[in-house]
Parts: sequence; structure tokens; C-alpha cells
Amino acid sequence: MLNARSKQARRLEILDGALTAIRDRGLKGAGMREIARAAGLSTGNLYYYFRNKEELVYACQDRALDQLLEVLALAKGRPGSSETLGALVEGHLQVVMAGGASLHLDVDDLPRPLFKKIVQKRDKYERGVRELLAEGQRDGEVRSGDTKLQAFALLGALNWVARWYRPGQDDEPDIIHSFKEQLLRGLLWQRI
Amino acid sequence: MLNARSKQARRLEILDGALTAIRDRGLKGAGMREIARAAGLSTGNLYYYFRNKEELVYACQDRALDQLLEVLALAKGRPGSSETLGALVEGHLQVVMAGGASLHLDVDDLPRPLFKKIVQKRDKYERGVRELLAEGQRDGEVRSGDTKLQAFALLGALNWVARWYRPGQDDEPDIIHSFKEQLLRGLLWQRI
Repeated sequence: MLNARSKQARRLEILDGALTAIRDRGLKGAGMREIARAAGLSTGNLYYYFRNKEELVYACQDRALDQLLEVLALAKGRPGSSETLGALVEGHLQVVMAGGASLHLDVDDLPRPLFKKIVQKRDKYERGVRELLAEGQRDGEVRSGDTKLQAFALLGALNWVARWYRPGQDDEPDIIHSFKEQLLRGLLWQRI
Repeated sequence: MLNARSKQARRLEILDGALTAIRDRGLKGAGMREIARAAGLSTGNLYYYFRNKEELVYACQDRALDQLLEVLALAKGRPGSSETLGALVEGHLQVVMAGGASLHLDVDDLPRPLFKKIVQKRDKYERGVRELLAEGQRDGEVRSGDTKLQAFALLGALNWVARWYRPGQDDEPDIIHSFKEQLLRGLLWQRI
């Protein structure tokens, strides 16, 4: 019998396996069997942790959003919009590049209650990003404009990375450096 | 018997209907029946134009990419990177906002030969955007850096609009204005 702590650790391993399998085979192609294999456990054992693929997909999304909310909380503590938004861009990219496809999984296909929970958490993150921008505007660091549109342009560029990033082929520090420069410059008054 | 010209016109109407149905019901929820209804013809008649949903999804993607390639060609004719990239951003947004979900449909699910054709056309467009950036760098207008990463950040912001844009609720000119400012500023040396 596993204790709660190792059960939780195993769940996280399974989520990593699921992301790997989905990245390699696509969302449709990665069945419970392929996910179990990628996570190094039997299919039967996988069902002990997740009753079906929908639950697993939900858990992947949910974890990625928790990570983004952590990134947001850490970014908030930085002084000034350049530091704050820089930390946000870097952290968001790391979540996307580590979690691969997870932010792109089709949440629309989730059962209604799970879909709602994901959308609520995603909205919370997006609201947080808009608040950072609004704060920066008040401080005179972020260019004036509709923070909703500013946030969506920023988040679109970041989320889209899941579509083209290939681990081992694309260089993570290069991406972070280039995106930070381009995206911050688009948002801040000062030349950076 | 319809002549070739009106058959082509009818095909385009069907694609518009398909985009509407997919936007309203999601890709899975929009079956041939719903698409036929949205396009104002019988399901049987729809099958005269498209043998199955995959063919229809392919045609939607293909048309959107043709429109993007037109945008690219028009943008190329403009003098200077600010004008060129401005036209590209505006045209790309118009295609996304008119075509709604089409750029986000899951091409991975297309049959292999259709998938390959779409990927080739998408690559052609992306290469074209990178060439615009490279040309701007040579002219000293676009900031130095990896044009692949610059292009992906730009295109991610633009493509992501399909995820959140709601026709009739979000204001198209506002979006174009805000995105142009933010995205061009991120790419150009000069203050704009």
C-alpha cells in the first residue's frame, strides 16, 4: 500500500509520461496503454490512479495552470515592470517547454465540470497577468492600452511555443532571451 | 447542373458555414448535418461537394492559408518594414477573425496526404514571414536576432486570436490597432 506522499509522486510521474506520450503520438494517438508505457507502469496500474484519459488530460492541464499561477506569484514580487514581466515570460516559457503540449490539449472535449474548473483557473491566471500590466501602466512603465489585448498578444506568443518547440532541438535559453526582448519591448515605454 | 463557377461559389459558402458551425459547436460537435444547416443546404447536397468532414476541414485550412499567402504577397509590396509588417499583422488578423477557428483546427487528425499538403503550405507562409524579417534586418529596420524565433512570437500572438476572439463582442479595429502597436514595437528598432 502506497502512502499518500508516494501516491502523489507517482501521479506526477504519470502526468510526465502522459505529456511525453501525447507529444510523441498526438492527443488521439496516445491511449491509456501508451501513457502507461511512457510512465513505466502497467495499464492496469495506471487505471488505479486515473479512471480514464479525460481525468488524465484534466490533471495535466490543471498542473500546468498551477505552475503558471506560481510563476505569476513569483513575478509579482519583483520590483518594476521590466523585472516582473521578464520573470513572467521566462517562467511561462519554462512551463510550456517542460509541459509540452499540455496547454494546447483540447479542453473543449473535457466533461463539463472539469472543463469549467480548467476555464476558471485559466481565467484566474489571465486576470493576474492583466493586473500586472495595469499596475505597470499606473507606474508609467507599461504602454497605455487595453490590458486584455496586451495580455492576449503576450500569452498567445507564449502559448504558441507548445506548437513548434521540439525539446532537444530548439535551444531553451535562446528562446527565452529572444522572446523576453521582443515581448517586453512591445509592452514597455522604455527601450530595453 | 451547376457550372464550374457557381460550384466554386457554393463551395466557398459551405466553407463559411463550416466555420460558423465549428465556432458555435466545436470541431467535434459540428457534424456534416450541422454544417449543412449552417450553409443552408441539405446534408445530401453537402456530400455532393465534400465527401466527408476531413475533406471539409482540409478545405477550410487550405483556404485560410491561401488567404495568408495573399496577405504576405501584398505586404511585400509595401515600402519599409514598418509598413510591410503592419500590413502583415493587419491582414493576418483579418484572416483569423473572419475564418475563426480554422487556423486552430487540429491538422494532426487529417489523413496523411492532406496533412502534408497543409504543413507544406503553412511552412511556405512561415518562411515568407521570416524572409520579410530578414530583409528588414538587412535594411536596419528590424532588430537583430533569430528570425525563426521572431516570426514564431509574432505568429503565435496572431494565431492565438482564434482562441479568444468573439465576433460581435470584440472590436476588430481595436484589436488590429493594439496588436500592430505592440507587435511592431517588439520587432522594430525605431520607436513607433
